[in-house]
Amino acid sequence: MDDTGQHLDHMRRTAPLVQNITNYVAMNIMANVMLAAGASPAMVHAREEAAEFTGLAQALTINIGTLSPAWADAMLESAVAAQAQGTPWILDPVAVGATGYRRDIGARLLDLAPTVIRGNASEIMALAGADASGKGADTADAVSQAQEAASALARRTGGVVAVTGPVDFVTDGTRNAEVANGHALMPRVTALGCSLTGIVGAFTVGQDPFEATVAALAFFGLAGEQAAEGVRGPGTFQVAFIDALYTMTPEDLARGARITLA
Amino acid sequence: MDDTGQHLDHMRRTAPLVQNITNYVAMNIMANVMLAAGASPAMVHAREEAAEFTGLAQALTINIGTLSPAWADAMLESAVAAQAQGTPWILDPVAVGATGYRRDIGARLLDLAPTVIRGNASEIMALAGADASGKGADTADAVSQAQEAASALARRTGGVVAVTGPVDFVTDGTRNAEVANGHALMPRVTALGCSLTGIVGAFTVGQDPFEATVAALAFFGLAGEQAAEGVRGPGTFQVAFIDALYTMTPEDLARGARITLA
Amino acid sequence: MDDTGQHLDHMRRTAPLVQNITNYVAMNIMANVMLAAGASPAMVHAREEAAEFTGLAQALTINIGTLSPAWADAMLESAVAAQAQGTPWILDPVAVGATGYRRDIGARLLDLAPTVIRGNASEIMALAGADASGKGADTADAVSQAQEAASALARRTGGVVAVTGPVDFVTDGTRNAEVANGHALMPRVTALGCSLTGIVGAFTVGQDPFEATVAALAFFGLAGEQAAEGVRGPGTFQVAFIDALYTMTPEDLARGARITLA
Repeated sequence: MDDTGQHLDHMRRTAPLVQNITNYVAMNIMANVMLAAGASPAMVHAREEAAEFTGLAQALTINIGTLSPAWADAMLESAVAAQAQGTPWILDPVAVGATGYRRDIGARLLDLAPTVIRGNASEIMALAGADASGKGADTADAVSQAQEAASALARRTGGVVAVTGPVDFVTDGTRNAEVANGHALMPRVTALGCSLTGIVGAFTVGQDPFEATVAALAFFGLAGEQAAEGVRGPGTFQVAFIDALYTMTPEDLARGARITLA
Repeated sequence: MDDTGQHLDHMRRTAPLVQNITNYVAMNIMANVMLAAGASPAMVHAREEAAEFTGLAQALTINIGTLSPAWADAMLESAVAAQAQGTPWILDPVAVGATGYRRDIGARLLDLAPTVIRGNASEIMALAGADASGKGADTADAVSQAQEAASALARRTGGVVAVTGPVDFVTDGTRNAEVANGHALMPRVTALGCSLTGIVGAFTVGQDPFEATVAALAFFGLAGEQAAEGVRGPGTFQVAFIDALYTMTPEDLARGARITLA
Repeated sequence: MDDTGQHLDHMRRTAPLVQNITNYVAMNIMANVMLAAGASPAMVHAREEAAEFTGLAQALTINIGTLSPAWADAMLESAVAAQAQGTPWILDPVAVGATGYRRDIGARLLDLAPTVIRGNASEIMALAGADASGKGADTADAVSQAQEAASALARRTGGVVAVTGPVDFVTDGTRNAEVANGHALMPRVTALGCSLTGIVGAFTVGQDPFEATVAALAFFGLAGEQAAEGVRGPGTFQVAFIDALYTMTPEDLARGARITLA
């Protein structure tokens, strides 16, 4: 694998335009995370324009956190456009197992071959059709329990699947990696997982999706580690986290990334 | 009344899953407030899944801050589901007196017997049918002016009504309490009232609604007092407030709560 | 031109109720910016109530950042109501050149004679029908390139046009001004431009729109300059910026404003 830091450097130099169809909770923090990291986020989701905008974007992310019929249509049309144009697109199947409506939309998006799927263990297991315990946006399953489901999903889509948690697992069905960066305060700030999906999208532009995903996860987790120093709770942590995404250098990332290839 | 701190301890140990159908302005900060306090928030509002999700949730909160027809349907269906299942549900009648549309939806939700109603003085007065002066989300009436309206509402719904302001008033039609915790910077951060409604929802799970509401208000207000020390404005205040919700212990709350039963 | 600080003092004393139909990304930070500055923001956008609420508001802002058909209807109806009542209304044509849908809605709003239009160079050029390079919410054109388009727009609407960037340009077709306040970290926080539109709306109430716009831009930019001292990145910057909006005095503004009339 290439030097992890080079992925950050490449993303910052190209500042890719990433279209994000994401949930209402995540929109603001996701945009701030992406701006701080050096990407150019655009939140465009209306059915009247989403797929047209996908033609301008260099990557697309789709997050089903706050679904509705009009949005689901826009998601499907933008994913079709991305697939047709060879634009990388990332699926974030938030709480996909919680309701029948989510399972249905999740399955239809899955058929459009996402370049990367990023979710927690319960979400990846539910998307793969395995029994999962998570409700809402939280996971009730361990990353290790979802490895088989992740590999099966990756073989099915031909893409990359990332299961994030205390130690992340990334697979493209052939190559596997674990990323140990991160901090326990991260799940105490809402929508950081959603925001990570945007960073993955930005890293994939012009890069091998497996390597880009691994680098994005290490970058994000390391920023969490840096941010946690000296904070008192999730409030100060969130602020320091945005700063860390902005100040981290490629050299910091190359030095601090804790990646194990398997 | 039980030791106030025990309510915080109970909520943190059970980390209840609370479904929130809330307005766009509040979603992110409300989720962060609830996560910092130790609850498990889920923002699920689409008509296609809201009522189904209510079956999973341990409490439901409904906030009419940014209404639309599809959301109003989801609110009504989720409230019906909560009522049928005996799940506590909290109504936050944001700016209910401002437009005819809000008055209509507010009245229909009121008929579904909310476990707790939490609003400012103008909102509680408008919901009770009294003349109120508030426009938008601000109040133009004092808490004391709304006490009669609150008591009438509580008798009508059989639930608890909390009027929040510099000194909060809580009633279930029989028992009354005042909570004097809070800080003048709190109304300078948007959607903190909405976020408080989520904390009330989390506290009510498995507890007496009147006592839980009083404890939730004291917890929230005390966090505001703690946060205000040494800050320069609403920006630093908001950050310190999230930290205070996270770091406050049940002992801190028992010591700092300023509750008067009447 | 009056003393710039007096515009801030007037806005704070009157705390105008400003209705904002804005995008999902901006709602929370826009409300916090306006509350910190001393205005009274209300985010009311549902077609069922938007125009009715406009009757209560002292100013209206319309931002097309996250469009959909129901919202577009509400925007048009509220703008009609504002125009009929002589209520100042501000148009923020976010990414108006990016899709055909945006161009169409932008043109229809333009016909309703916004009191002030505030956008970046690419947006102002696209709205005026000139060739523009910007995609998404970022600009790819310099403020100086948009001066002619801005003047043409101002003459066409009879209103004020503000092109914001490193040095802002404001025109009403006759009077021109440049405002040099601001800081490079501001575009690294999402939706600060959108939030500025709310501040412009609050400043216009009861004031000459050209002078009010110039004062609002100087106030906002100076807060950015004050906030940037000692911060490490966009996270700490955003927090300090909210504080600066809250703590800045009219005297600070009069002293720090860097306005050139032309």
